[in-house]
Amino acid sequence: MFNLVIQGSYFTINPNDYQKINFIQNALIVIDHSGKIDRILQPNDKDYSLIKQQAKNKDLLITLNNDQFILPGFIDLHIHAAQWPQIGTALDRPLQQWLNDYTFPLEASFSDLDLAKNTYQDLVHTLLSYGTTTAVMFGTVNNEPNQILAKQCIQQGLRAFIGKVVMDNPDQCPQYYRDENISTAINQTKQFIEFTDELNSNNAIKITPVITPRFIPSCTIECLKVLGDLASKNNLPIQTHLSESNWENDYALSTYNQPDTHILQAANLLNDRTILAHATQLKSSDYNILKDKHSSIAHCPISNIYFGNAVLPVKKLLNNGNQVGLGTDISGGYSPSLYRNLQQAVMSSRLLNDGVNNEICAAKRGVPNSQITMNEAFYLATAGGAKALKLPTGQIKPGYLADLQVVKLHTSAMLKSANDYLERLIYQTEQNDIQAVFVQGQLVVNKINL
Amino acid sequence: MFNLVIQGSYFTINPNDYQKINFIQNALIVIDHSGKIDRILQPNDKDYSLIKQQAKNKDLLITLNNDQFILPGFIDLHIHAAQWPQIGTALDRPLQQWLNDYTFPLEASFSDLDLAKNTYQDLVHTLLSYGTTTAVMFGTVNNEPNQILAKQCIQQGLRAFIGKVVMDNPDQCPQYYRDENISTAINQTKQFIEFTDELNSNNAIKITPVITPRFIPSCTIECLKVLGDLASKNNLPIQTHLSESNWENDYALSTYNQPDTHILQAANLLNDRTILAHATQLKSSDYNILKDKHSSIAHCPISNIYFGNAVLPVKKLLNNGNQVGLGTDISGGYSPSLYRNLQQAVMSSRLLNDGVNNEICAAKRGVPNSQITMNEAFYLATAGGAKALKLPTGQIKPGYLADLQVVKLHTSAMLKSANDYLERLIYQTEQNDIQAVFVQGQLVVNKINL
Repeated sequence: MFNLVIQGSYFTINPNDYQKINFIQNALIVIDHSGKIDRILQPNDKDYSLIKQQAKNKDLLITLNNDQFILPGFIDLHIHAAQWPQIGTALDRPLQQWLNDYTFPLEASFSDLDLAKNTYQDLVHTLLSYGTTTAVMFGTVNNEPNQILAKQCIQQGLRAFIGKVVMDNPDQCPQYYRDENISTAINQTKQFIEFTDELNSNNAIKITPVITPRFIPSCTIECLKVLGDLASKNNLPIQTHLSESNWENDYALSTYNQPDTHILQAANLLNDRTILAHATQLKSSDYNILKDKHSSIAHCPISNIYFGNAVLPVKKLLNNGNQVGLGTDISGGYSPSLYRNLQQAVMSSRLLNDGVNNEICAAKRGVPNSQITMNEAFYLATAGGAKALKLPTGQIKPGYLADLQVVKLHTSAMLKSANDYLERLIYQTEQNDIQAVFVQGQLVVNKINL
Repeated sequence: MFNLVIQGSYFTINPNDYQKINFIQNALIVIDHSGKIDRILQPNDKDYSLIKQQAKNKDLLITLNNDQFILPGFIDLHIHAAQWPQIGTALDRPLQQWLNDYTFPLEASFSDLDLAKNTYQDLVHTLLSYGTTTAVMFGTVNNEPNQILAKQCIQQGLRAFIGKVVMDNPDQCPQYYRDENISTAINQTKQFIEFTDELNSNNAIKITPVITPRFIPSCTIECLKVLGDLASKNNLPIQTHLSESNWENDYALSTYNQPDTHILQAANLLNDRTILAHATQLKSSDYNILKDKHSSIAHCPISNIYFGNAVLPVKKLLNNGNQVGLGTDISGGYSPSLYRNLQQAVMSSRLLNDGVNNEICAAKRGVPNSQITMNEAFYLATAGGAKALKLPTGQIKPGYLADLQVVKLHTSAMLKSANDYLERLIYQTEQNDIQAVFVQGQLVVNKINL
């Protein structure tokens, strides 16, 4: 039996071809008690009228208007939760200075648990209200704020992957904000895993703990190896930064005489549950390492402009068979909205394609065949992210989790094709246009009195 | 005497140094009956309490909250009004195809005057509600829709510069959408000038007619010359496109064996009232032509990504003493918001600075010293645009027009500096955050029951 039926038109990636989008009009999305999509009926299906009437009789039918569309909830693969207070500020500093002068002091200040609670309450609410239904997050080095973050996600209904941040390298981490030694780092990581086990026992929407070495500069090689073992032993996902900037990339090369990809591989930190943020400076000679390990890249197009020192060649990676999803990188990126990052993913790919310097002749200015379409960007934020997380979400189809957003066209008009509507939705949706959000069938944002 | 007093904190460009922003807290902005800022008082000025009390007694005082800020109204130097119905769609086509398959048919369809009225009503409302108080627009070849546009601007209180679009070259313009010959083009242009003269006689907010040859491909050389004469004789502003894309730029070179800048100059179309959209492919050897003529560039950073084939080197132009403002280029750009274009102006400048192709070594990847700050972007959308139009607006200071927007912080927080607040305002403001807009002292958008 169903728990909820939504009648409306939806967009979802064509599972056989991520360059295509299916648009289904006036469907009935039937959601079961576990929060999964049980079936989807179209107007000419024989049960359509019956199910609609049954849902109506039980007051379990939501009927949308013509200017409202259903999209899969978005999946944000890269967030620094404790950086939320500084979102959209100080972005004119280079990465190393931004970290040491702004970011590390801010993250350390979350030992003030009131600050943590207020911040995380606002962050989780904001993510949901932008249509993000699954979020992969870095917490802080300190564990208490991480527990508060996990509780907030449960309370507001955001599916979250959260990691206690590991920073144990005294040479590169400030004394006020680091793990005292490897065993502190590992014990705290284990403690957070146990905490989430307990938290999850009572709730339908789960928190997944994530093994989280911040990046190569912040960790000792020995610590990376212990974290790699811990991830394997517990079959846990891993998140870290990869080849983010000239500086970060050069650090690994000059300190260890090898790229960070190789260091992570040696520490057993690259597998099919690994999420690598940025990868902007990753050499194409190393693409196959990630491909062979089935590790995923979290493309953060806005943040990369400030800290990446180049555009991630998404099209080349997709063509190579690499797995890519999308991230906001709060607060390296100034926007909590994956819509804004979808837009920038398309725009940055076009700048890579066409080139930026008009003093170079057109034929040599850019990198041909680098452009991605809006459909491909949509894939990154939905099915691409879900694939990275091995989750049945990111698509609207039977058997998948009912993670959905209801969006109203920002500017109404009679457009020519379904693709035009999707393009307009992605280019123009602001927070206020996202009228309802469901996570696992639960209504978690409701601006239209559903 | 005053007509209105607004008590609040505001940001405005430092008129002596456009890289700096002044932040004045808890000021009284005193607006006279003509819609000009008469004076600005700060809390320690001796008349502060007196004026505040007088305004209060007459019910002419508006007092803002701590999370509300006043900014100058923005100036959009480049809009195609008749492209509004296709905003945010079909952006994956190259310029020439986009024009012939989408844009020209749409503009031609405005001979349906109901479509024109509904579209322009929505467009003008939208621009105002995004904080744009002065707009420079291309209308259509046909004149009746242009008159409807002018009336809508007057009715809703948007200060507008509007041009009847001239397209008389039968080789490049479709038969269904062009001026029959030069004399039709000129007569229709004159007719629109007369129409606005009459319209302006009754209204405080004025419509300025603009001489508007679409671009070099669409006009015959003879027609350009007659338009140049008409502009001089009537002392009218001029708007056109300049070196927008590889295609447009190459058209002038291959057809006339000279860049479009030289053709416009020969036709007497470059002067201190000329607005040139894009200029993305303008060679730096021609910068001094524009500088000597005091002509302005309308930088359209979002649109340029789709159609410009390079990033406009804004920093180099500013350093060279060229005059630059900002435009949305609706609908080449997908957003009606100058906030979004401010963001992209900063981001595109950083991509030009750092370069985009990670296969080139960091030292050779970008064009050093190309980065603009948020303050410089803010200048483009305010004082820069005002300078291009020779208008006393774009700054909050006595003697200037009271074109103002009241904006609420999208994400509230205690930030470290005034600059942090401005950065967050520019990076995060969405339509819903712009709570009130004044044009020439008239309240034209009011979401907070002022």
